[in-house]
Parts: sequence; C-alpha cells; structure tokens
Amino acid sequence: MRFEKPVPVKWIAEFTEAELLGNALGNATGINEIHKVERGDIVFVDHPKYYATCINSAADFIIINKETVIPDGKALLVVNDPFEAYLKLVNHFRPFTPSMKTFSDTASIGHGTVVMPNTFIGNHVIIGDNCIIQPNVTIMDHCIIGNNVTIQPGTVIGSDAFYYNKKTNRDVHYKKMTSCGRVIIEDFVELGAGCTIDRGVSGDTIIGAGTKLDNMVHIGHDTTIGKNCLLAAQVGIAGATVIEDNVILWGQVGVSKTLTIGKGAVLYAQSGVPASLEGGKNYFGSPAVEAKEKMKELVWIKRIPELWKKISEKK
Amino acid sequence: MRFEKPVPVKWIAEFTEAELLGNALGNATGINEIHKVERGDIVFVDHPKYYATCINSAADFIIINKETVIPDGKALLVVNDPFEAYLKLVNHFRPFTPSMKTFSDTASIGHGTVVMPNTFIGNHVIIGDNCIIQPNVTIMDHCIIGNNVTIQPGTVIGSDAFYYNKKTNRDVHYKKMTSCGRVIIEDFVELGAGCTIDRGVSGDTIIGAGTKLDNMVHIGHDTTIGKNCLLAAQVGIAGATVIEDNVILWGQVGVSKTLTIGKGAVLYAQSGVPASLEGGKNYFGSPAVEAKEKMKELVWIKRIPELWKKISEKK
Amino acid sequence: MRFEKPVPVKWIAEFTEAELLGNALGNATGINEIHKVERGDIVFVDHPKYYATCINSAADFIIINKETVIPDGKALLVVNDPFEAYLKLVNHFRPFTPSMKTFSDTASIGHGTVVMPNTFIGNHVIIGDNCIIQPNVTIMDHCIIGNNVTIQPGTVIGSDAFYYNKKTNRDVHYKKMTSCGRVIIEDFVELGAGCTIDRGVSGDTIIGAGTKLDNMVHIGHDTTIGKNCLLAAQVGIAGATVIEDNVILWGQVGVSKTLTIGKGAVLYAQSGVPASLEGGKNYFGSPAVEAKEKMKELVWIKRIPELWKKISEKK
Repeated sequence: MRFEKPVPVKWIAEFTEAELLGNALGNATGINEIHKVERGDIVFVDHPKYYATCINSAADFIIINKETVIPDGKALLVVNDPFEAYLKLVNHFRPFTPSMKTFSDTASIGHGTVVMPNTFIGNHVIIGDNCIIQPNVTIMDHCIIGNNVTIQPGTVIGSDAFYYNKKTNRDVHYKKMTSCGRVIIEDFVELGAGCTIDRGVSGDTIIGAGTKLDNMVHIGHDTTIGKNCLLAAQVGIAGATVIEDNVILWGQVGVSKTLTIGKGAVLYAQSGVPASLEGGKNYFGSPAVEAKEKMKELVWIKRIPELWKKISEKK
Repeated sequence: MRFEKPVPVKWIAEFTEAELLGNALGNATGINEIHKVERGDIVFVDHPKYYATCINSAADFIIINKETVIPDGKALLVVNDPFEAYLKLVNHFRPFTPSMKTFSDTASIGHGTVVMPNTFIGNHVIIGDNCIIQPNVTIMDHCIIGNNVTIQPGTVIGSDAFYYNKKTNRDVHYKKMTSCGRVIIEDFVELGAGCTIDRGVSGDTIIGAGTKLDNMVHIGHDTTIGKNCLLAAQVGIAGATVIEDNVILWGQVGVSKTLTIGKGAVLYAQSGVPASLEGGKNYFGSPAVEAKEKMKELVWIKRIPELWKKISEKK
Repeated sequence: MRFEKPVPVKWIAEFTEAELLGNALGNATGINEIHKVERGDIVFVDHPKYYATCINSAADFIIINKETVIPDGKALLVVNDPFEAYLKLVNHFRPFTPSMKTFSDTASIGHGTVVMPNTFIGNHVIIGDNCIIQPNVTIMDHCIIGNNVTIQPGTVIGSDAFYYNKKTNRDVHYKKMTSCGRVIIEDFVELGAGCTIDRGVSGDTIIGAGTKLDNMVHIGHDTTIGKNCLLAAQVGIAGATVIEDNVILWGQVGVSKTLTIGKGAVLYAQSGVPASLEGGKNYFGSPAVEAKEKMKELVWIKRIPELWKKISEKK
C-alpha cells in the first residue's frame, strides 16, 4: 500500500512505540508485507529465520523484534510484537469504514458505465468507461476497474486475503492479517458470475487486460493474471502467484501460491499445480506434469496387469 | 434464438451489407450458432474447415466469407466478417437493455410464487406458479422458470456463455460471442445456493423436470440436463453437453463440453469427464472410467513395489 | 430440532393420524432424523432395514409403517407413510414463512455489529456482538451467529440440506426432506466470500470457534467443523460429517458424508476423502491416503517403464 504522502519514520516510531535505530531522518512512502516490498516501504519481521530477507529487501524501514545489523541508510523499528505494530499502522492508514450505502459517495464511475440493481460499490472504488456491472455484484473499497469491463452477477471483487498469523500462545489461534491492498481489473476484462477476487494483503491483485474468467473462479490475494488469459469455470488460484500472458486454465484447475505459470501454458481440466511451470506447454494431472507425459503414464498404468502376467510366466 | 416473426432474407442481406446468393425469397425464423441450428435458421461460418458442415446443416441461410456451392432452396449471405454480421443481427433482434429495477416491468410471476428480498428479475422473465425464489438471486433477461421451482440464495440464472472468438489480428484478442439464448428451468426443479446457469449462446440451456442441484453447481451454455437428475455440490458442466435423465453426479465432478452422459449413469465424486459415457453404469476418476475398472487400477498401482521385488529376485 | 415446549405424544398421534402403541403418556421434546436423535425425540423410519436402528436409538417416539416390538417406555406411531407424517410435523412446528424484509423483525443483532447493504437477515436469526456482515450476504431463518464473526460478501448461511427421499412409485421422483435444523457459527469464525453453509436437516450445522473459511467453501447439512480449523478456497464438505479441531483442508478438497476427520489432520489440495481419517497426519490424493504413501506411489508409477524394460531384458 502506498501512503497518500510520505510519512516521517520518526512519527512511525512514536506511533508504534518503537525504538528507532539507524537512519532516523527517512520518510516512508508505503507499507507492505515481504512478498510485495518496494523502496520506501515499511515491512515487518518477527522470526529470526526471515530477518536477513527483510533487512536486505527493498524496504527501507524494518519493524523487528530484535536489534540487529542495519544496512546503510535503512532504519530498524524495534518492538515486542512486530505483527501488532504492522496491523496498527495498516488500520491507521487504511481503516475499514464500512459504507452503509449501496453506492458509496466516494466511488466514481465513468461515461457509459451501467451499474445494475442490488450491486454494492464501496468507498473509493473507481470504475472506468463503458462497463457493465450486473446485479448482485459486490465491489469492496479501493478497487479499480478499467474500461469496457463486464462483471456478471454475484461476483465479489476485493474480498479480504485468506492470510492469518498463527498465535499458538494466545486465545486467538489465528490472527487475521488485515488486507490493505487493492484489486485492479484492467480494460476489456470479463468476469463470469459468482467469482471472487481477493484484494492484496498489502499489494495489488491484478487481472490483466483482455483476460476472461468464466463463472465461480477464485483468485487469491496479490496474484497477478496476465493479459488475454482464459480461466474456465471453478478454477481456483491461491495467493501471490503469477499467471503470465495468454495462459489457458480449463475447468476446476487449482493453482498453489507464490508460483509462476509461464506465458502461453495450457492446463487441462482438474489439473493441480503445486510448483512453477514453464510457458508454451500443455499440462495435465494433479500434480500437473506435461500432458504428453501424463498421457503416457495413464497408458503405462493400464499395462501393470500385463507386466504382472509377464513376470509370472518367466521361469 | 427464434424471431418473433419471420424476417425476409433480403432484409437480412441489406442489414448486414451481404451479397445474397441462392434463394432470395426465403424468410428466416431464427438465428443460431452451428451447434443448435434448426430449419429456417440463419447460421454463420468463417473458416473453410466448417463450410461443408454449415452449408449442409439444417440452417437455410448461411453467412459466409466466400462464395461456394449452394444447396437447393438455401441462400448464402457473403460478407467479409461473418462473425461481426452475426453479432450485428443478434444485437438487433435481442439487444441487451439492462433493467434498472429489481423486478422488471416485463417480467411475470405465477400464482403462489414468492420472490424474496434482494432478488433481481430481468426483462421478459417468466416464472410459473408456486415457486420460491430466495434472497439475492439473479434471473437475467428472457429466462423461463416452470412451476414448483425452488431457487436458493445467491444463485444466478442466465449469465452469459463463456464463448469467445479468437481475433489474433486485432487489439481485442478474444471477442465475445453475444449470448442470445435462454435458460429454461422445468417444473419441480430445485437449485441450491450459489449456482450459476449460463444462458445458451443461441439456443436454450435446459434443466429437466424434477432435477435437483446442490450448492455451487455450474451449468454451461446450451447444456441440457435431463429429468430427475441429482447434481451434488460444486459440480461443473461445460457448454453444449447433454446429461440424460436420472444421471447422478456426485460432488466436484467436472464434465467437458459437447458430450453426452447416458441415462442413469452415476459419476463418483471428483471424477472428470472428457468424452461421452454410456448410460446405466458407474464411473470414477479423472479421466473417468468404469468405477470397477478404476478400483482395480488403484489396487494394481499399489502392487508395483511387489512387482519390482519379484523381478529383482528373478535370476 | 427442539420444540419450544414439550408436546404430548397423544397430540402427535392425533395430528399425524397415527395408531399410538406403547407408552402413550410421554411428551416429545424434539424431532430429528436418525443421524441426530436425542432423548425425547420423535424419529421416523419407513424401511425394515432401519427398524432396529431407530427403535433402539435415543429417540423415544418412533413414526413407523409397521407394528413391531416396543422397548420399555417408548411409543410407536404407526402410519402408512412415516416420511409424510414427519414432514407434516416439521412443517407444523417450523413452517417456512419467508420474510419479505431485508432485515426480519424477529432477527436481532448485538452491540457493535455492522450489517452492510444488500444483505438479507431472516426470521429469528440471532447475531452476536462486534460482527461484520458484508454486502450481499444471506442469512436464512433461525441461524445463530456468535461474537466477532466476519462474513464476507455473497455468502449464504442456512441454505436447505440437499436431502431427498426417493419416491419411485410417484410422479415426484425425489421428494425433499424439509430442513428444520439450524446453522450455528461460533465466536471468532471468519467466512470468506461466496461460501454456502447448509442448515441441518433436523439438527445443527456447526462451525467451531476460531475456524477460518476461505472463499467458495461449501459445508453440507448437519456437519460439524471443529475449532481453529482452516478451510481453503473451494473446499466442499458433504452432510453429517465431523471435522475435528485444528484440521487444515487445502484448496478444492472434497469430503464425503457421515465421516470423521481426526484432530490436526492436514489434507493437501484437491484431495478427496471417501472415508474417515485418523488425526495428526497429512493426506493426499483422491481417494486420500497418507501423503508420504501417495508420494511414494507417484514415484513408483514413474518407474513402470523401467520395470517393463527390466522384464523384457530378462531371458
């Protein structure tokens, strides 16, 4: 998430009751979780395993629970519970203020755009020109819809990330990481009925221009779908994954988190993708492998009884 | 799609700026894409591979991009871009005029039918007697609901077909084929919550009498479900497929397009159906095979280590 | 379902036109189908195969279609069609009276709870404190939501069970078993967007405290989900199943009916669960087996060609 204007790290330190170490003169321009950090960002880390990754990431301001080496020009904000400090900042800069109108006063729509009945448009939503937003759609706060976009009935844009911090030592077992990111739907995208597109935890979930989703497709937080992709019905994609341009996912395909599917890949129906896949190829199976390999495998499986017979006949 | 009254092919030719060849005196009674053509229909074809299929289909009026042999009594309408001419006709005869009311003035409901709050009923929708349409349902234009039908919350009837024409030489990569078909829900059908039933691209999507759908079932365009079928939760069926009477599909089954599942077939949970299946049998797996074969196969797979051992012991 | 106050079995017999045998002095305190019976309950049975189970269950009052041995203190209500008698009682004690308001007069919400626009809250719904019910949600009659619960857009709570009685000798092939049960969502539960939680047929569907559901999760009737479980997107769970505490189901997992998944079990994505699973282990596959076994199996399958080669080389 970007701040509206830079915020002095000194103010951040006071607000989070942190001990400020290193460059105390900087200004933070945004806040992100580690998968999405940019220069000028605040990030948090609470486990020694990830200290190095966070301190050496693009982020300039690291909320941390232990004093450690500080790279030149960066600052540490040392607190007892970095996760809680992060949440406090997110809730301060992007508080959830539920709109009680079906069309928020702070939302805007472009020329020629039609919003049909029973649809909810949240705060600060921006919708471009010549869109058709059909009935019973929900577009939550801060989401951005391009031009010539069609959204079919019952679809939800900007639901919260499914992202929890495990708290084994507390009454609350899983504590939600507040989503402060957005969903960005580019031009000429068409979304089927009953889809759900989660907002980024801290960054953006993006559906690239010209991409078409069938019904009941689920897209996780911070995931980027490229341009001119086709996602058939009941496809599900987990968080922080990258689907490059011109990818085709047939019905009921499932894709795991934080991986990449290369440009032009085609996944046959019901495939499951646990790891990154190279572009330009066809895949099938759960776990998905190259389709031609899978087809051979299916033939080999059918030959097991023959194998058994052969070996039994051998002297 | 049927026209309200027959339309002279001469008028069609003028409207689409087509060269009219063959029988110039006919009247078109409808328009359909090739999977659904009937006598009196206009159809279009833009690829030489499908010329013969279209010209020899039931359709009497063929929008085509090349002059070719014309069967007796039929007419060709020669244009540069048959797809665009088809779209122009569809948009003329069934323009999308979004209703801005939750219950369109042109919709009608029968005696004893209850429509609960937050439900949208589109233009020209007809709902029969003694139905219960629960909250947050969306029924789009021209759909027809029989008698004694229950539709549970959040279900969408008449979403557009997921059907695109690939335009590799244009800015728009995929161009949508406008759906002008309908959904017809017959008597005593019950639809669960969060289902999506796509309208036909040009024909009808039909749910047969007495059929019951659980929650989150997706039915593609132009698909016909027979009578007294059971479709469990999260089943997905692609377009232009035929499910005959008394078929049972258990949870999360996926069925591909333009195939037939025969009467009384049973598909076990999570099966995937890539090709037609004979009726009266039980199936399992992805791709689905007869359940008893699949069960044997699963046993054979578990015996591979034993096979390995056997062969290693052979001298 | 519990009655508001005990009902004399004599009145039940008259109302259902049943012959009353055995203890005619009892009072019924509720009505349930056989999976959920408690002391004081009315239950029904119409097939000799299940006579013994029902008569020896916790239920005290058995609607049955044949006179048989009566355990001490129990009563039989003999009728021609026990299923119809059961339905008559359910419809009498819990009639479906559709609310025509978006917020029923008989519903109540606690302190600090926000109900966003386009959401439907049915009759006798009780929602606790500090909940956020987002737009386009549907909560049907008699459901109970605890404190600090978040329900994301488009989710449906209290849809009817997918539960039909097969009537081969009638015009109506499948007759619906009217759902008179409830959904109970405990404290600190978070439900994603586009979920569907069916009410119990006669008992309660329960989501345990601290459990988090991602988007498009389906929970069947009378199912109990334990505390602090994680259910990822597009998981589907059939009816009357028990998921114990701390279970994790990754994306698109399917779970069959009337089984138990033990405490702390983890199911990898797209797994299918046809039978009960012990807690504390990881599982994968459809049908699901222990993940380490499945992984070995996948390796063995890849070795079949090598096996074939080995055997072909043997003299």
